Amino acid sequence: MYAATLRTVHDVGYARATVERIAAAAGIAKTTVYRRWPTKGALIVDCLLDAFGPAPLGATDPGTATGTAGGNTESGTDLGSAERGALIESGIRWIAGRIGQPGVGDAFAGVFSDAVSDPALRELLASRFQDPYRQALQEALGEPEQRVLFLIDTVVGTLLHRLGMTGEPMSDTDVDALVAMVRRFFAAPE
Amino acid sequence: MYAATLRTVHDVGYARATVERIAAAAGIAKTTVYRRWPTKGALIVDCLLDAFGPAPLGATDPGTATGTAGGNTESGTDLGSAERGALIESGIRWIAGRIGQPGVGDAFAGVFSDAVSDPALRELLASRFQDPYRQALQEALGEPEQRVLFLIDTVVGTLLHRLGMTGEPMSDTDVDALVAMVRRFFAAPE
Repeated sequence: MYAATLRTVHDVGYARATVERIAAAAGIAKTTVYRRWPTKGALIVDCLLDAFGPAPLGATDPGTATGTAGGNTESGTDLGSAERGALIESGIRWIAGRIGQPGVGDAFAGVFSDAVSDPALRELLASRFQDPYRQALQEALGEPEQRVLFLIDTVVGTLLHRLGMTGEPMSDTDVDALVAMVRRFFAAPE
Repeated sequence: MYAATLRTVHDVGYARATVERIAAAAGIAKTTVYRRWPTKGALIVDCLLDAFGPAPLGATDPGTATGTAGGNTESGTDLGSAERGALIESGIRWIAGRIGQPGVGDAFAGVFSDAVSDPALRELLASRFQDPYRQALQEALGEPEQRVLFLIDTVVGTLLHRLGMTGEPMSDTDVDALVAMVRRFFAAPE
């Protein structure tokens, strides 16, 4: 179902990828889709969760990490500056890679766009899609919610703006610049 | 006409602000609107150009500026690091303020969203709306096109992501963080 969703979005664009078309691509009845996902937005959000999977927040080299990223329940952090930077960098490269996959970036930008004038979808996107990553980041970095939300705005907003303005994912050179800018800013705890 | 456009977008949301509704709010015939703006997107882009006006790129203190911001035709820049930082900061605060005006942020996020699945609108948005600011920034900062496009992605993307995810403009505290992060990264020429 998720593969058929991404394929349809990739083939005909987000706006024209109706639930009817997606159901047809998956070879199942439209009513069956609506039993599980009441709206197109709900289907897309679950499809994105499946496509992104868990964030690679344990991806710092265990040989250099001094803390317990992902299992940190303190409000402070045990991670040193280099480990924080490595964790942020792997997160940025991971999300940039995901947004560059066929259909994923279009689905992400499209559902985000619909959410601008749809408060219920915005709530779904924030609570069901963004919140798990936000919480994992807060624990891994030991940063307060407001600062992690700012980090997400910066990274996701920059990548989506490029995709929205050009129709293409960000080039490697610019992803490198984004990594450098954000690493530098978030290397030390607030 | 532009005031009626922003008022309608503010009152009923971007998606439901049809050309018909906007024309009614302005007290003119829909056909008259379509003679000047062939699509809703074209009307919104011109409305945004009017709402934003020229970027405040000459806003650095003339007493401290060593270069000729805005009139610089060299590929290098005469601006020192502090002047470059001040110019970037005033630009960020200007756009954050504009996006916070009633109707403007909604119209901006909405037209940007529509452009994701509308290549013709994307081209209009990039060439008619973004390009004049990009060129003025390239001249003022003496930076290559790619780096200025990255600067725009970062600032506009971050502000629009916050607006899209929460329905509210970014708080002053977070705008301060954005200024600090971007100033630090762009303070020196590449």
